[in-house]
Amino acid sequence: MKQKIVFALALLTVMTGLYAQELSNFMNRKPIISPEISAAEVTFRLLAPKADTVKITGGFTPTVKMKTQWGEMDVPGSLTLTKGDDGLWSITLPLPEAELYTYSFLVDGVPINDPNNILLQRDGTRFLSVLLVPGKKTENYFEANKRGNLHQVWYESPTIGLNRRMFIYTPYGYETSGIKYPVLYLLHGAGGDEDAWSSMGRTRQILDNLIEKGLAKPMICVMPNGNPNQMAAKTTALPESDFDMRDPAKRNLYVNSIVKDIVPYVEKNFRVLADPDHRAIAGLSMGGGHTISVANEYPGLFQYICPLSMGLWGEQTDIDEKLQGLKKAGYKLYWLACGRKDFVWESAQKLDAKLTENGLKHTFFVTEGGHTWANWRAYLNTFAPLLFK
Amino acid sequence: MKQKIVFALALLTVMTGLYAQELSNFMNRKPIISPEISAAEVTFRLLAPKADTVKITGGFTPTVKMKTQWGEMDVPGSLTLTKGDDGLWSITLPLPEAELYTYSFLVDGVPINDPNNILLQRDGTRFLSVLLVPGKKTENYFEANKRGNLHQVWYESPTIGLNRRMFIYTPYGYETSGIKYPVLYLLHGAGGDEDAWSSMGRTRQILDNLIEKGLAKPMICVMPNGNPNQMAAKTTALPESDFDMRDPAKRNLYVNSIVKDIVPYVEKNFRVLADPDHRAIAGLSMGGGHTISVANEYPGLFQYICPLSMGLWGEQTDIDEKLQGLKKAGYKLYWLACGRKDFVWESAQKLDAKLTENGLKHTFFVTEGGHTWANWRAYLNTFAPLLFK
Repeated sequence: MKQKIVFALALLTVMTGLYAQELSNFMNRKPIISPEISAAEVTFRLLAPKADTVKITGGFTPTVKMKTQWGEMDVPGSLTLTKGDDGLWSITLPLPEAELYTYSFLVDGVPINDPNNILLQRDGTRFLSVLLVPGKKTENYFEANKRGNLHQVWYESPTIGLNRRMFIYTPYGYETSGIKYPVLYLLHGAGGDEDAWSSMGRTRQILDNLIEKGLAKPMICVMPNGNPNQMAAKTTALPESDFDMRDPAKRNLYVNSIVKDIVPYVEKNFRVLADPDHRAIAGLSMGGGHTISVANEYPGLFQYICPLSMGLWGEQTDIDEKLQGLKKAGYKLYWLACGRKDFVWESAQKLDAKLTENGLKHTFFVTEGGHTWANWRAYLNTFAPLLFK
Repeated sequence: MKQKIVFALALLTVMTGLYAQELSNFMNRKPIISPEISAAEVTFRLLAPKADTVKITGGFTPTVKMKTQWGEMDVPGSLTLTKGDDGLWSITLPLPEAELYTYSFLVDGVPINDPNNILLQRDGTRFLSVLLVPGKKTENYFEANKRGNLHQVWYESPTIGLNRRMFIYTPYGYETSGIKYPVLYLLHGAGGDEDAWSSMGRTRQILDNLIEKGLAKPMICVMPNGNPNQMAAKTTALPESDFDMRDPAKRNLYVNSIVKDIVPYVEKNFRVLADPDHRAIAGLSMGGGHTISVANEYPGLFQYICPLSMGLWGEQTDIDEKLQGLKKAGYKLYWLACGRKDFVWESAQKLDAKLTENGLKHTFFVTEGGHTWANWRAYLNTFAPLLFK
C-alpha cells in the first residue's frame, strides 16, 4: 500500500501543470535519456512526432563562418536529428573533447532546451541545456568530495544608493575552523549578474576541487552584481533604475562601491584576513575592465590582480600615470589572460605592452579560443592556485 | 568610444553560443516581450516562422477532464496562438486572477519554455515558465523591501551516511542583530528537493514580506532534501544511492536524520533559540508525511506541527498510541491543511477525525483546490504568522 502511495504521490507531483494532450503519452512512455554519454559517443533525443525538422546546435557542433560588423566570426552551426517511427528524434555524435558545452534543439526553427536534461544554465536572459563531458580539462567542474557553501547575500550600497545582492562562497570547513580566510572578489561580464560565475563559471566546484587537492589556499569568493542599475539578477523581477551604464562617471560608481561598500561588508560579516595581502580581484570582459579600474584607482588595496579577456581600449591618456601609481604601491601578482581569437585580443596585447613599458612585472597568459566561458572557467582554474602564496 | 565598446561587449556576451542560422534575425529583430501584462490582459508571444501550430498551456488555460487510474482529473487544456506575417505568434488573454502560474508553449506538439521570459522554475526534473500576476493573493510572492539571505549549506548526515545539502533562510538583520531566532523546518514533497520551497514555494519572499509587515516573527527557515538516496538536487549531478525510498524502514532514516543530524547542525552553526518552543516543522505531501512522523516519533521536540496536503493512509495500527504520546508531550499548534479537490482529501479528513477522537486540539484548514503549489504557498503565507507566538 505504501509503495503505491509513494508512487502515486511522485507521479502526481510531476504531473502538476501537465497538459491533457500529452498526459497519456507521458504516463505510458519510457523515460527518454538525453544526453546519453558513453565512452566514445553522445546521443541526444527529443520526442517531437509532429515536427518537420529537429536540429541541434551548440558548442560541439561544427562552426560556420559568419560576417558581422566586427568582422568574420566562427559561430556554431547545426546538425539534423533523424526521426524514428515513434516520433523520437535522435542523433549520435562522437564524444567531443572534455568541456562544459551548452546546446539547444531547433524544432522547426524554434530554439528549445532539451526537456530531458536537468542541467540548464542561464546566460544573461537565455537558458541553455548543458553537456558536461568528463576528462582532464573538466575534472574540477564536477562536484568535489568536500564542498563549500554558497550564500545569496543582500547588502547596502550607499555608493550606488541601492540594497543589492551578491553570491559568496565559503570554503569547506569555514563554519568550524575558527581561522580567517583570504578573499577573491570575482567579477562577471556584460550581460551577466551575481549568478554568472557560480552557474556558468562553476566557481564553487572549481574552488572546492582545487582546495581539496591542496592546489589552492582555502579562500572566500565574493561574486557581486556588476550592473549598477540592478539590485539583483533579473530573475528576482526587482525594478531596475534608469541609470545609464554607458555614462563613464556612473560606471565608476560600481568600481567605487566594490571598495567602499562590498569589501567593508565582507570584512565585517565574514571571518576574513582584512589586509591587501589577502585580497584578490579578478573579472572577465566588463568585469576585467572593473578589475583594471579597481587596481588603477585604488592601488595597493588588492595584492592580486587578474583581468580576463580585457585590456586597454581607446585613448586613456593617464594610463602611464595610473600604472606608475600601481607600481609604486606594489602588488604580488598581475595576471592578464586572453585568447588569440578573442575580439579583445588587440586590447589585451596593448595592456600587456603598457605594463611592460612601465616596468610592471606581470604574466600574460595567452590561450587559444575567444571570448567564452570555456576560457574563463579554465582561467579561474589556472590563477586560483597562484593566489595568497 | 566607450559606449560602443560596452554595447559590443554586451551583444557579444549574449551571442556566445548562438547559432549562425538565427544570428541575423537576432541582431536585427526588435525585442520580443512575453509575457506582457497590462491592467486587464496578458499577451504571450513566440517567434516561430516555420511552425505549423503554436499553443499555450498552463495553470491559467481552461481545464479539461481526463480519465486516469485514480479517477477523472481536471488538467490544463491548451489555447492556440495566432501567427502574424512576421512569423511572430501571439495570444492575448484576459488577465487571470492573482496567482503564480507556470506555462509552456507547444510548438508542433513539443512543449517548450517561453524563451523571452526570464522567469523559469524547476519542478522536479521539468523547467516551466512563470507568469506572476500581481494582486492581493500574490503580494507576498514579490520581493519585499527588507530581504533575508539564502544559504546553500552542506552538512554531514551520519544517520543516512551521506554529506547532504540543504537551503537555509536567515531573516533580514540576522548578521548584525545579535539576537537568537526560532526555526521553521520546511519539508518538500515527492519529486522535489532542497530547492523546491525557495523556488516554487517563494519561501524567502513570503517570509520576508510577513516579517517586514510585522505579521510573522523573524525566523530562520531550514529546507532540507527529503530524498535520502540523494546528497543534493539532481542539478548537482552527484551520484544517487540505490537505496529504495519505498522501504518504510529506510524512509524513517530521513525522519530520524531531521532530528539527529539537521536540527543539531542548525543549532550549532546558526544563532537560534534551541528549545521546543522555538522549533516548528511543516511539510507538503510526502513532506507532510515526514512532518506527521517527526511529531509522532519525537513528541515534544517541535511545538509547532503543520502537515500540508497529507493525512493518514492505509492501516496504521499504532496511530492512537502515537497521538496519545504527542498529546501527553504537549504542543502549541497542530495545523493541518488540505484542499477539497486534493487526491489526499480523504486521508486528511481521516487525520482530522483521529486528532479529534484522541482529544488533540488542532486546526483543520480547508481550502478549495488540489495538490498544488498555489495551495502550498498560500498555506505557508497563512501558518507562518501563527508560529512562535
